[in-house]
Amino acid sequence: MEKRILGLDPGLATLGFGAVLCNPAATGAAQVSILDFGIIQTPAHQEIGDRLCMIYDDLHSLLDYVQPDLVAIEKLFFYRMGNTIAVAQARGIVVLVVAQFKLASVEFTPAQVKQALTGYGNADKQEVQQAVARELKLEKAPKPDDAADALALALTAWFQA
Amino acid sequence: MEKRILGLDPGLATLGFGAVLCNPAATGAAQVSILDFGIIQTPAHQEIGDRLCMIYDDLHSLLDYVQPDLVAIEKLFFYRMGNTIAVAQARGIVVLVVAQFKLASVEFTPAQVKQALTGYGNADKQEVQQAVARELKLEKAPKPDDAADALALALTAWFQA
Repeated sequence: MEKRILGLDPGLATLGFGAVLCNPAATGAAQVSILDFGIIQTPAHQEIGDRLCMIYDDLHSLLDYVQPDLVAIEKLFFYRMGNTIAVAQARGIVVLVVAQFKLASVEFTPAQVKQALTGYGNADKQEVQQAVARELKLEKAPKPDDAADALALALTAWFQA
Repeated sequence: MEKRILGLDPGLATLGFGAVLCNPAATGAAQVSILDFGIIQTPAHQEIGDRLCMIYDDLHSLLDYVQPDLVAIEKLFFYRMGNTIAVAQARGIVVLVVAQFKLASVEFTPAQVKQALTGYGNADKQEVQQAVARELKLEKAPKPDDAADALALALTAWFQA
């Protein structure tokens, strides 16, 4: 049965999304194809509350449109100290909206995504993006980076399904 | 003109709230009185997404009921390392809902609250709670602590108004 998987890379200024369609009944490269990808952006000069409202509303529209069967969300760690609280607040909105839609979800660390896409957890950004392009039969890596990261999350969920 | 100020102390397991009614036209101790206080709790065994949904729904009910003119929210720092991300995600829901209601809001650090209530930023929890009880003409400090902290936030906003 076909499965729609949506990857979400949380952020306050830029939230990446990437959706793939997976068909276990197909063979080889036909099993997975790209549905959509992009970013939700909020302007830095706006109040944090208004920015979270934008993310909330845009995520509702996105989930209405993509109708995913599974959502893969990036796990947050402390390595991005400077803006961890801002990112965590935005991530709270992501987790909230996914739960409001009663969707199944999984979480992956960046290292798990790298491991799944390239075979080793210390791969650099470019290697991951090349793997995303290869898996999805794209001529080049999808842009911007946050959207590529979101597609990588969706693919990781697919590989582990 | 009377003003309803709601203090919110964000948390995932326990979110404290405390509302006061302020009347600048009154004299002395009659200027501020307690409206309501309490906590929103979510069970630890539930999925984080479901817990954030509970906070979202309960906050909507609370704001519908209290109809505050101003909301005071505790500022989050890194000193509570262990659960900072969980608290920040819950705080994201608080900031979101306050913005959805288009309410004016202010933020205070714990040190600012201590300074405003007791006159010095290193006061201990008990001294702050005694100050809350004194300002609100209560026989003893309101319980639980998270609700008392929320009332302290509301009073801080009032003192600074």
